[in-house]
Amino acid sequence: MKSEFEFIEKIRRYSLSSKIGDDCAVIPKNSKTDLVITADLLVEDIDFRFDWAIPEFLGHKALAVSLSDIAAMGAKPVWSMLSIGIPEKVWKTDFVEKFYEGYFCLAQKFRVELIGGDVSETPDKIVIDSIVGGEALRNKAILRSGAKAGDLIFVTGDLGGAAAGFKLLEAGIQYDSTGKAGLKNLLLKQLQPFPQISHGKFLSENDLATAMIDLSDGLSSDLAHLCHESKVGARIYADQIPLHKNLRLVADSLEEKLDCALNGGEDFELLFTVNPKKNFKFKNELKNKGFSLIGEITANIEIIELISNKKSAVLQPKAFRHF
Amino acid sequence: MKSEFEFIEKIRRYSLSSKIGDDCAVIPKNSKTDLVITADLLVEDIDFRFDWAIPEFLGHKALAVSLSDIAAMGAKPVWSMLSIGIPEKVWKTDFVEKFYEGYFCLAQKFRVELIGGDVSETPDKIVIDSIVGGEALRNKAILRSGAKAGDLIFVTGDLGGAAAGFKLLEAGIQYDSTGKAGLKNLLLKQLQPFPQISHGKFLSENDLATAMIDLSDGLSSDLAHLCHESKVGARIYADQIPLHKNLRLVADSLEEKLDCALNGGEDFELLFTVNPKKNFKFKNELKNKGFSLIGEITANIEIIELISNKKSAVLQPKAFRHF
Repeated sequence: MKSEFEFIEKIRRYSLSSKIGDDCAVIPKNSKTDLVITADLLVEDIDFRFDWAIPEFLGHKALAVSLSDIAAMGAKPVWSMLSIGIPEKVWKTDFVEKFYEGYFCLAQKFRVELIGGDVSETPDKIVIDSIVGGEALRNKAILRSGAKAGDLIFVTGDLGGAAAGFKLLEAGIQYDSTGKAGLKNLLLKQLQPFPQISHGKFLSENDLATAMIDLSDGLSSDLAHLCHESKVGARIYADQIPLHKNLRLVADSLEEKLDCALNGGEDFELLFTVNPKKNFKFKNELKNKGFSLIGEITANIEIIELISNKKSAVLQPKAFRHF
Repeated sequence: MKSEFEFIEKIRRYSLSSKIGDDCAVIPKNSKTDLVITADLLVEDIDFRFDWAIPEFLGHKALAVSLSDIAAMGAKPVWSMLSIGIPEKVWKTDFVEKFYEGYFCLAQKFRVELIGGDVSETPDKIVIDSIVGGEALRNKAILRSGAKAGDLIFVTGDLGGAAAGFKLLEAGIQYDSTGKAGLKNLLLKQLQPFPQISHGKFLSENDLATAMIDLSDGLSSDLAHLCHESKVGARIYADQIPLHKNLRLVADSLEEKLDCALNGGEDFELLFTVNPKKNFKFKNELKNKGFSLIGEITANIEIIELISNKKSAVLQPKAFRHF
């Protein structure tokens, strides 16, 4: 099977478009503003499981994954479209209503207006295509392709929580609002991820990030995407990676915890690079936001080194497939 | 089961957006231009059958159905996005490559740039979400809601061909490039519909249409949508409806032929209304384009009359479900 990555490369050559290959496509809106647009397809039994999905959370997540792409451009979300295919048996339940409750609740938070989409029946599985349009200052959208050797690599928030939440679901532990805080925390990271719009905006307004991507596939894969687009390499330090505080609930060893953070995906935090001079100037702001400096960009094109216990190893992009 | 129509009405109230309920959403781009956007979900075994679909034609059709929505606004298509979910067994064949051949071939015809989308695996069925963005002069996009009592109702082209093509496929007659012209003609209307962009543009440039919709669900349903949005009724004349010349290959009686034209759907022609004064001025142009005057708008809100053999009957919106 060809990988999604190879396939997108092919379509890119085919379409002759420079707009494919980032979190969003960027097209000029007017003299001051660019329009950024993204689409994310969520398929039952590939991206979520019906029996695990709380409909409100799934509605939230469908929008959140696309908002996260907007965040990764340093842009502001403005409107959305939703195409949804539902099997007849689900259509008869209150699933769709609850799904939209979750969707609209998050949309209102970011003042995103649902302007269209499509509705269809499907034979068997739910399928959702979530489209969001946003705005960035003209030519100021933060691309994956701007990282230079020497730039510092940062991530927002903590990593591995969504993967740990997934492991809990796999082990039969479902979300329960009256459950233990630690478990709930991890499950919510997986089921109801929060898009880092305000962090993206902060980085954009201060012209801080030379490149950015959201952590949807996992740090190892998403850093590889960023390096590929920027034609650079990277070195990251295992002991600098901010691990979610509750990972101990699913992972005993540091190695297992790192696996969640590196390869788990779906944390929907932001990975970005900063010019060292800018970092010097904004050191306190970056620290106060809780961003973690995890390494630096190198000139070793598409080689990613992981430094662990002072030993270096090449890190392969790896995303553990969910279903 | 709630109908798609009722469902969209509900979402519309929920979202508080005035942009839902037309062929495209309209959002301001700059002082001179509006952006129009549409999304169309195509689901295997609901909207197409894998064993009938020639991949190049399916790629063409996926784009064509959305271009048809752009045409129905009198707008010009500019960019597109494509989200596609493919089962592993199909991924291994040359289906995807041929699908994109058909897609890009039509895209090039209208200089539409593919700027993004998403790719995912699906467990079993192919699913496609086709998104197209276009441009209209500011506040000049032709809506469904502008028809007034007394306006004349027109359609472009011939109707019923796509439904007849569907009947042929159902009867086991597949498309064969060396087959008989009449059969090929009907099959192509179903498998490779052509979006009426230039007709839409002509109507827009001459400020001719007070309301417009594309014929995707079928004349009876789409006229009902237009009447609903315009808060009007309509009267159409059976003997004025332009029937596809090859309908005799699948339908013996006039009644059957009319059923194809009224309820078959997927002709992707345009249905539009014209103020009688404008019609007087542009009579020759409208005739030369081959548009057919099929009736007039009335003040009988949401009542559609079909006049046949000088008898009037209320026409119920009816779309024959495909699968």
